[in-house]
Amino acid sequence: MSELIEKAKAARLAFYELARTPNPVRSEAIRAMADGILERMGEILDANSKDVEEFKKVNPSSPLIDRLMLNEKRLRGAAEGLRRIASLPDPIGEVVEGWRNEQGLEIRKVRVPIGVLGVVYEARPNVTIDIAGLAVKSGNSCILKGGSEAINSNAKIVEVLRESVRGLIPEDAIQLIKTKSDVEELLRLDEYVDVIVPRGSARFIKYVREHSTVPVIETGAGNNHIFVNWDADFEMANRIIVNAKVQRPAVCNAVRKVLIHERIAKDYLPKLMAELRKYGVRVKGDEKAREIDPSIEPADEQDWYEEYMDLTLAVKVVGSVEEAVDHINKYGTRHSEAIITRNLEDAEYFTWNVDSACTYVNASTRLTDGGVFGFGAEVGISTQKLHARGPMGIRELTTTKYIIYGSGQVREL
Amino acid sequence: MSELIEKAKAARLAFYELARTPNPVRSEAIRAMADGILERMGEILDANSKDVEEFKKVNPSSPLIDRLMLNEKRLRGAAEGLRRIASLPDPIGEVVEGWRNEQGLEIRKVRVPIGVLGVVYEARPNVTIDIAGLAVKSGNSCILKGGSEAINSNAKIVEVLRESVRGLIPEDAIQLIKTKSDVEELLRLDEYVDVIVPRGSARFIKYVREHSTVPVIETGAGNNHIFVNWDADFEMANRIIVNAKVQRPAVCNAVRKVLIHERIAKDYLPKLMAELRKYGVRVKGDEKAREIDPSIEPADEQDWYEEYMDLTLAVKVVGSVEEAVDHINKYGTRHSEAIITRNLEDAEYFTWNVDSACTYVNASTRLTDGGVFGFGAEVGISTQKLHARGPMGIRELTTTKYIIYGSGQVREL
Repeated sequence: MSELIEKAKAARLAFYELARTPNPVRSEAIRAMADGILERMGEILDANSKDVEEFKKVNPSSPLIDRLMLNEKRLRGAAEGLRRIASLPDPIGEVVEGWRNEQGLEIRKVRVPIGVLGVVYEARPNVTIDIAGLAVKSGNSCILKGGSEAINSNAKIVEVLRESVRGLIPEDAIQLIKTKSDVEELLRLDEYVDVIVPRGSARFIKYVREHSTVPVIETGAGNNHIFVNWDADFEMANRIIVNAKVQRPAVCNAVRKVLIHERIAKDYLPKLMAELRKYGVRVKGDEKAREIDPSIEPADEQDWYEEYMDLTLAVKVVGSVEEAVDHINKYGTRHSEAIITRNLEDAEYFTWNVDSACTYVNASTRLTDGGVFGFGAEVGISTQKLHARGPMGIRELTTTKYIIYGSGQVREL
Repeated sequence: MSELIEKAKAARLAFYELARTPNPVRSEAIRAMADGILERMGEILDANSKDVEEFKKVNPSSPLIDRLMLNEKRLRGAAEGLRRIASLPDPIGEVVEGWRNEQGLEIRKVRVPIGVLGVVYEARPNVTIDIAGLAVKSGNSCILKGGSEAINSNAKIVEVLRESVRGLIPEDAIQLIKTKSDVEELLRLDEYVDVIVPRGSARFIKYVREHSTVPVIETGAGNNHIFVNWDADFEMANRIIVNAKVQRPAVCNAVRKVLIHERIAKDYLPKLMAELRKYGVRVKGDEKAREIDPSIEPADEQDWYEEYMDLTLAVKVVGSVEEAVDHINKYGTRHSEAIITRNLEDAEYFTWNVDSACTYVNASTRLTDGGVFGFGAEVGISTQKLHARGPMGIRELTTTKYIIYGSGQVREL
């Protein structure tokens, strides 16, 4: 039996115990994890220094060094995050619905943990701490695989976390795996692992989708749109577009395309361009947009599919809210879209007919976030349609089951 | 572009139109499908005769002939089924939850169709009618692939269904594909298809799980257990076990294993054996069971994993409810399990700690069924944990999205 299968089996057994551990004990274990991180900070920072040194040898000036590096502030932040997770209400045990059927069966649909989560992610070692906390809070075991650059940091962090929870919950609920070949094997361990959550590049997520026999919760790309309708408040539109484009252009809820109603294009586009120039945004556009402002670069068909990760934006002039919706459904990635408008009819048409996880009226696409939605913490943002859609909190790490009480009922033919 | 991609694109466009079609019109389309089936019964039966003749040439005495064959009664039943689906309450548009966040954003989580469903199933051509009805009711397009033996029947049925809905909903919402290579291609069309539902043998479902890049809702095997606790009502236990074992031994919610508390094994097992003998049930068992009744055949390790599809049952004597739960979680397939008991403490321990879709107290595992649960119709029974668990009705063919109304809110840093 491979080492990985042994870890997966141990995680599964730990899950059965964790699932029957009450919330106060699970939450105490998470606070003990926070204490452990603070008390053994020196060990963790030493292990992290090794990773950073190794990484610098090969990539002396990579921007990833900053992502890889831990310091006192970051570890204090992670410990605080754990305390926040510990204080969230228990997602487990909720009676989602219940009824008595014709035969007198008392049927209850109740919320329970999923089981064993496999989470595979990239460089940042503090993600290890977040995910372990979210998993324990929701009664799940987790098998973690961080980036290979962070191997010493993650090994030390998992050692600290496991030792911290001893006596409260089974330490086998938190497992670390280390190699690429372990990941390949993990994706096929459907007997022991209930779900895989991949975090990282679009390419990596595609790899997981194609190779996993375990169900996958996908977090995806955000080719997001803002549609400025004929009756939009121009000042509000500018404020929202600048926020969504400029604040953090590389994140998945930033805006990539602006659609403008043709009735206001001549009036509004110059005002938008003036604002965008202040922030150094590079603007591409269709022919109609370029007729209004020839400084706009031409956009080709591929541009409408593109998830620009920098300060690039493409604008397009459309004839109606229907055309805007059709464009978004054709080219979008089903993440977050917004309409800026004053009339209810178009707001309603837009929000119900755009096929995306989050549709906004008069607000920024950047608001698609577990924190903003009030979930306290976030596992990721799902752009697929099964199980979880939009920001995923701890509730999305749960499933339901049916508990049925009878008094001797059998199936009639 | 392949013919399949054209069909998938057409199904996607039809979905956008169907998703904005109100429930009365969707339901009228389903009733028109029922009318079409009845009016053009002759054509459908002719096409079916061809399939049956072809199949008989190769398999002159296969039990599958009966599954393949349509007749007036079966088509009338399918048409009635469509009318029942049409009369179900609309699953679409429900506000699942909603709140106003700190910034004044009005956040609603609403129920919407999934999009394009790929459903792949085996011989029975009436499944084509059921699935098309369930898909239209829930606002989804469907791409159907039935068994190759039923190719003429399914082609005619889909022709009739598409022609029947004309003028009400886009006929491209119902698509048929015909070849094995189409299925291989379908499993990788994640750009156009939102979910694959495989129905059929465990081997086929495994194939789909391993090859699909589209998310899969799995319907699975049922190695189901009934645990007779020390305080069980013996008569009730016998009635439930006979129902669960004998009524339809090949279905997925039949019982395959009986666990008996050691405190009552000597008293109860002979009573159970006497009852099972009446129905010709073949009983295997562990050493302790065989000491009580030597006519019980020895069960080996593999038996505890087995989903007997015939009148075979294995019995095992266990020391406690904890041991029963551990055994079920080790060997079971997470479908349906029951405890026969009079005391609340063991009932509660059993139902919450058994890791299965449906856990029963004093009732038959055969009750795991969309009809019994009051869902009107059933797409299948999910034994996985993501999205849907247990009997899947039309609500399980929906997803949610967030609709957020603001008044100019942007993301603070």
